[in-house]
Amino acid sequence: MLDVDVNRESTGFSVLNPAFAERVVTSFARQAFMAFIGARMVSIEPGGCDIELPYRPELGQQHGFFHGGVVGTLADNACGYASFTLAPADTSILTVEYKLNLMAPAAGSVLVARGRVIRPGRTLVVARADVSVRRDDGIEKPVATALATLMLMAGMADEPSAETRKGGGTS
Amino acid sequence: MLDVDVNRESTGFSVLNPAFAERVVTSFARQAFMAFIGARMVSIEPGGCDIELPYRPELGQQHGFFHGGVVGTLADNACGYASFTLAPADTSILTVEYKLNLMAPAAGSVLVARGRVIRPGRTLVVARADVSVRRDDGIEKPVATALATLMLMAGMADEPSAETRKGGGTS
Amino acid sequence: MLDVDVNRESTGFSVLNPAFAERVVTSFARQAFMAFIGARMVSIEPGGCDIELPYRPELGQQHGFFHGGVVGTLADNACGYASFTLAPADTSILTVEYKLNLMAPAAGSVLVARGRVIRPGRTLVVARADVSVRRDDGIEKPVATALATLMLMAGMADEPSAETRKGGGTS
Amino acid sequence: MLDVDVNRESTGFSVLNPAFAERVVTSFARQAFMAFIGARMVSIEPGGCDIELPYRPELGQQHGFFHGGVVGTLADNACGYASFTLAPADTSILTVEYKLNLMAPAAGSVLVARGRVIRPGRTLVVARADVSVRRDDGIEKPVATALATLMLMAGMADEPSAETRKGGGTS
Repeated sequence: MLDVDVNRESTGFSVLNPAFAERVVTSFARQAFMAFIGARMVSIEPGGCDIELPYRPELGQQHGFFHGGVVGTLADNACGYASFTLAPADTSILTVEYKLNLMAPAAGSVLVARGRVIRPGRTLVVARADVSVRRDDGIEKPVATALATLMLMAGMADEPSAETRKGGGTS
Repeated sequence: MLDVDVNRESTGFSVLNPAFAERVVTSFARQAFMAFIGARMVSIEPGGCDIELPYRPELGQQHGFFHGGVVGTLADNACGYASFTLAPADTSILTVEYKLNLMAPAAGSVLVARGRVIRPGRTLVVARADVSVRRDDGIEKPVATALATLMLMAGMADEPSAETRKGGGTS
Repeated sequence: MLDVDVNRESTGFSVLNPAFAERVVTSFARQAFMAFIGARMVSIEPGGCDIELPYRPELGQQHGFFHGGVVGTLADNACGYASFTLAPADTSILTVEYKLNLMAPAAGSVLVARGRVIRPGRTLVVARADVSVRRDDGIEKPVATALATLMLMAGMADEPSAETRKGGGTS
Repeated sequence: MLDVDVNRESTGFSVLNPAFAERVVTSFARQAFMAFIGARMVSIEPGGCDIELPYRPELGQQHGFFHGGVVGTLADNACGYASFTLAPADTSILTVEYKLNLMAPAAGSVLVARGRVIRPGRTLVVARADVSVRRDDGIEKPVATALATLMLMAGMADEPSAETRKGGGTS
């Protein structure tokens, strides 16, 4: 059972892999950087994915708010995993590019990124993410928005190859 | 003395704060997230700034390479501090937006982001960053490029306010 | 009376200039390039603006579809005028930057760009535009999406200065 | 003979189609919109392409300067044709997305866009364009910079299909 809120109902997109949620959760768990910063995937649906990240001082910029790089990281990943829900079972996904508009200081207890696919494609996917901060009283305030292009890579594994594993990704 | 390679010679830009390097180093040191991931500012010049980050498994994505969010973080910060070198002494700086193109897997020992101002302005600054990975044999390979818009904020302090300090940036 | 569908009801944004629609229409009419390509503003609301452009072979790229530059032009302008509706009466507006994702060939009879403000600000405004093509049977298909940053310029006129008028913008 | 300055010397990129310049010129000539606004391709090299556009009042925005959409059009096309020089003979090219930073009013006699490939790829190409205005005294001033992603489409013709030709791109 997944520790994530999964919606398997139709959202209007074609789902090519019935086990999309399991695949997304497994891939997310492989991203060491997500555990390092403390990010948690909270919900998945066809074409959508929400990620949350509780505040810790280590994630701050010079004013103590969430660092812009952390905001970008969450937005990028929410777009990526929203897109990954629509991928065939043998297909991996890469971020081609993204643009992030930082609209307000990310001051709050929890950073929340909601990724949604705008345009699914066989090779390229366009997705958007809205990022907010939630305060302790539950009120959310938008802090950033992103627009991303992702690429589906047929036949590419979503895990380290034997070679990568040996070299530790550092050679 | 700064543990950074500082070039105070002219690079063609107007320097409005003679202590630009000290100010940049101090601000960078206030960004807890930079210490958390292990990033180090290595050089500063008027309109330019280079940042490096040694590989650690905690910074990886699902294939073990530097996470795209880490690449974006370094690119954003290199653009930001390149721009900050040209700011007046009483002026802070914010990232308005950036776009990042991820061009190759960031597989290597050290991630290197080189930020350079393209267009200085009194209110808005446009900067670019090129991001590479350096392997143990010293060979560098480009992995990403970014284009960013920054905003100069006259009269805004580049440190937490009394209020922020109390609330820990979480309220 | 304006030859544009104007909605003066609240859309949740603060309107600082009661004559916002008149100002937008007047500015649009000053853009010679809009008349040259045949673009028409069709609706205005606080924080929103729709622009349409009927197909003509002169607007085509190599396959005969609307040129990407035309799609970008309409998206940029829809964002710009959506933002301009929220500007104070003495304030002009400039596009700082925009990003455009072209998602499908723009093959159809009418190009439609719908600009909406995402984040109003005193200095910077973030807006989005969705661009579709409408076929003769009325069916619309999305072809592009844009994310733009605009800047409000207090005290800057939204028309040529005496100097510009003399020099024709060419000196 | 081409009415364009062609450099066939190596610029460090692999040229896959020896007739790259002829192909670029032919494709450019098919873009009706380029003739409509008066744009002219002035130089081509492997991975590079420059396009110029003399000022005409019809290309103006509300202050009489080159319209931002015209600036974007030239930047997009310079990136596109710079990338097209590196394409195999049976491959067409599409703009996936671009981001444009408008850095100064485009006031001058001639708009000049210089596109250069940053990262060639088998499927995706990343290119940059710098856009300037040239005054009558020959002095150039930068006005914009763009970063674009292009996609190579193997087996796709760079001209209207029989069907497109019948329907005029409007159905």
